[in-house]
Amino acid sequence: MKPINVGLLGIGTVGGGTWTVLNRNEEEISRRAGRPIRITHVADRNVDHARSFTGGRAAVTDDAFAVVNDPDVDIVVELIGGYTVAKDLVMQAIANGKHVVTANKALLAVHGNEIFAAAQAKGVMVAFEAAVAGGIPIIKALREGLSANRIQWLAGIINGTTNFILSEMRDKGLPFADVLAEAQRLGYAEADPTFDIEGVDAAHKATLMASIAFGIPVQFERCHIEGISKLDAADIRYAEELGYRIKLLGIAKRKEAGIELRVHPTLIPAKRLIANVEGAMNAVVVWGDAVGATLYYGKGAGAEPTASAVIADLVDVTRLHTADPKNRVPHLAFQPDRMSDLAILPLAEVETAYYLRLTAADQPGVLADITRILADLSISIDAMIQKEPAEGEAQTDVVILTHVAKEKDVDTAIARIESLASIKGRVTRIRMEELNG
Amino acid sequence: MKPINVGLLGIGTVGGGTWTVLNRNEEEISRRAGRPIRITHVADRNVDHARSFTGGRAAVTDDAFAVVNDPDVDIVVELIGGYTVAKDLVMQAIANGKHVVTANKALLAVHGNEIFAAAQAKGVMVAFEAAVAGGIPIIKALREGLSANRIQWLAGIINGTTNFILSEMRDKGLPFADVLAEAQRLGYAEADPTFDIEGVDAAHKATLMASIAFGIPVQFERCHIEGISKLDAADIRYAEELGYRIKLLGIAKRKEAGIELRVHPTLIPAKRLIANVEGAMNAVVVWGDAVGATLYYGKGAGAEPTASAVIADLVDVTRLHTADPKNRVPHLAFQPDRMSDLAILPLAEVETAYYLRLTAADQPGVLADITRILADLSISIDAMIQKEPAEGEAQTDVVILTHVAKEKDVDTAIARIESLASIKGRVTRIRMEELNG
Repeated sequence: MKPINVGLLGIGTVGGGTWTVLNRNEEEISRRAGRPIRITHVADRNVDHARSFTGGRAAVTDDAFAVVNDPDVDIVVELIGGYTVAKDLVMQAIANGKHVVTANKALLAVHGNEIFAAAQAKGVMVAFEAAVAGGIPIIKALREGLSANRIQWLAGIINGTTNFILSEMRDKGLPFADVLAEAQRLGYAEADPTFDIEGVDAAHKATLMASIAFGIPVQFERCHIEGISKLDAADIRYAEELGYRIKLLGIAKRKEAGIELRVHPTLIPAKRLIANVEGAMNAVVVWGDAVGATLYYGKGAGAEPTASAVIADLVDVTRLHTADPKNRVPHLAFQPDRMSDLAILPLAEVETAYYLRLTAADQPGVLADITRILADLSISIDAMIQKEPAEGEAQTDVVILTHVAKEKDVDTAIARIESLASIKGRVTRIRMEELNG
Repeated sequence: MKPINVGLLGIGTVGGGTWTVLNRNEEEISRRAGRPIRITHVADRNVDHARSFTGGRAAVTDDAFAVVNDPDVDIVVELIGGYTVAKDLVMQAIANGKHVVTANKALLAVHGNEIFAAAQAKGVMVAFEAAVAGGIPIIKALREGLSANRIQWLAGIINGTTNFILSEMRDKGLPFADVLAEAQRLGYAEADPTFDIEGVDAAHKATLMASIAFGIPVQFERCHIEGISKLDAADIRYAEELGYRIKLLGIAKRKEAGIELRVHPTLIPAKRLIANVEGAMNAVVVWGDAVGATLYYGKGAGAEPTASAVIADLVDVTRLHTADPKNRVPHLAFQPDRMSDLAILPLAEVETAYYLRLTAADQPGVLADITRILADLSISIDAMIQKEPAEGEAQTDVVILTHVAKEKDVDTAIARIESLASIKGRVTRIRMEELNG
């Protein structure tokens, strides 16, 4: 069969990995796909770099629109990133009747509904396995592998930078800032790490997973986002004492009233498999009503792991390129005319267990005050640690684990606790998830 | 669109689960598949049971061939098991131009080449996600999710019964026979557990995974199989002391000379995620050259987890039912005219590290004899434990971990060691895998 011609937009880390793997495994891939897949066109701002990389085996330009408009290109791979030019290029490719493969989670989390609708109207595919958890085929698992299930929830370590930082903070007992500096030195964190450490990247990915798990439109703007930059090493130690690990999780959960969609540092029982995912690795747990829990683990970033996902999409698109659009897997797993209008719940309505840490004067009656405040709001206590005050100190750390409660009641409780004269400073709140059904 | 009519052969555990989940999640599934999928025909030897289960919502018969020959049936789900009648039914369904979904690993591991060739000739699909690791979408991951990769090896805990037994032996320090009896009482082991405990079931699954990982025909007869029935609780303890766990793994590994395909108890480093997969759970690690290691974890058996995989296949087949066969994913991942003739290596040529345990007289020179025998065969020693003899005993346990060596050299070494006058009884040999690349 005629080879498939790919136009590659951006030959940086992931684009370079895609070129390398597609060439190295050319035979293996065409044995699977049934026809050769080759990158025939490359667009990159740095034309010299692109030329030296491709060694004359692809047409190189600095004009990405020229590639998108080239009638010889069957599939466009968008690896430029960002919301602006990338969006115009993807929309133009679709308008030209070309299939698109992209790793751009930010673009899809924010503009996905518009992009998928345009693709649907044109009868082309927009594939995005590489947008979530790098080389782990989690989009395929959610969209196809678990299609029998009513998915109840999913929770994932979907940002390697923050998981590396949390692993190091725990292993070495170091504060956040020191570990971030080390991560930057090792290349695990960007020079401007905001998107990673503040949870925005994880929220993009959680938004996409929630959409295909529940059959709802992408709604990034409704995702609650908290990063790890304010996390205290003391909380990691206390969590450990209580049998928990702290991970930055992207969580999407189906409730009676709607969908919880949130990214925040989370205590999870240390014995769960996902609690033992260390360093820059990613993992996602999905709970389906038929299958129970399944877990998917692997490298969530890097040139070749991400290329692995890009190329898997290229093979899928190649196979279905000439097939009637109604025979293909829907972009968001559910047929576009059968999407659900289930609402994303405001954070105040979210229910989970909580870890609370506060500093109290070492005087009688303090614990009684705190427990009365919690009891008044029907927040019940699962465990408590009260440390002996350090020599010469008149104050002490109190750590409380609650049973499941509503966020807005915990907000009220924290405000009342902070107003007690015996409490010094703010209450630290970290959410907990049992991840057991 | 017109609903898809499914003929279900066998409404036992998995068949019942398939009926239940397909009905419970009817709306969710049709929102994904784009059309309703309904079981319209059921064949079971126990017609009364089938009638009471289906409550008049499907035509029930005890004649499975009548279902396979019924022109109203679009897809046949074969859940009868075994090699004989099941094979005739599957071949007849294919001959009638019907797609087949099956959970029958034994049938496909032994007769897969014939079945897939017939399906290919007829342009129908034979889908078998449920045949390996229950509800974990590992077939889809290997066949589609990792299609960019040259897969180097895979290793899986793919039999829940044996993993449950090994977990209990380790946790409770009990011998194999006691734990097997407990597993039978709890329903984790069959009354006749031979297929599970002797590794045959795991070998069926490893054979299928090897085929789609490497693009080779199914070759069950060349799989080396060792079960766990001879495993001594002492070896589990010694492995623990050395930082390892013992798991029954199905292993398929690409070497220069061919493919290693084997099922046996295996020492793996305790810190690997897969070493911490406990009880009846399953997990598979796959190493691809681009993605590195990915791991897939979940329930490997049970009514609804297995039904989850059966129905995922039904959705896939439903989507591609009217598509040209060349647009579909190949049965064994690689195009049938592009299969490889890479040979499965004889066990003597397999290379791995080894755990050796022997009982030696507590006298000078014994260790020197053993280490000389190993050195003569270029088998180098990684670690050794020599226990003090128990009070009043004149013999002692010696445990040796070797570096990677060839099986045939280790055979020779064991024969020579066993012939030493100072060695009592046989040498216990358990293979080791680092599972790190």
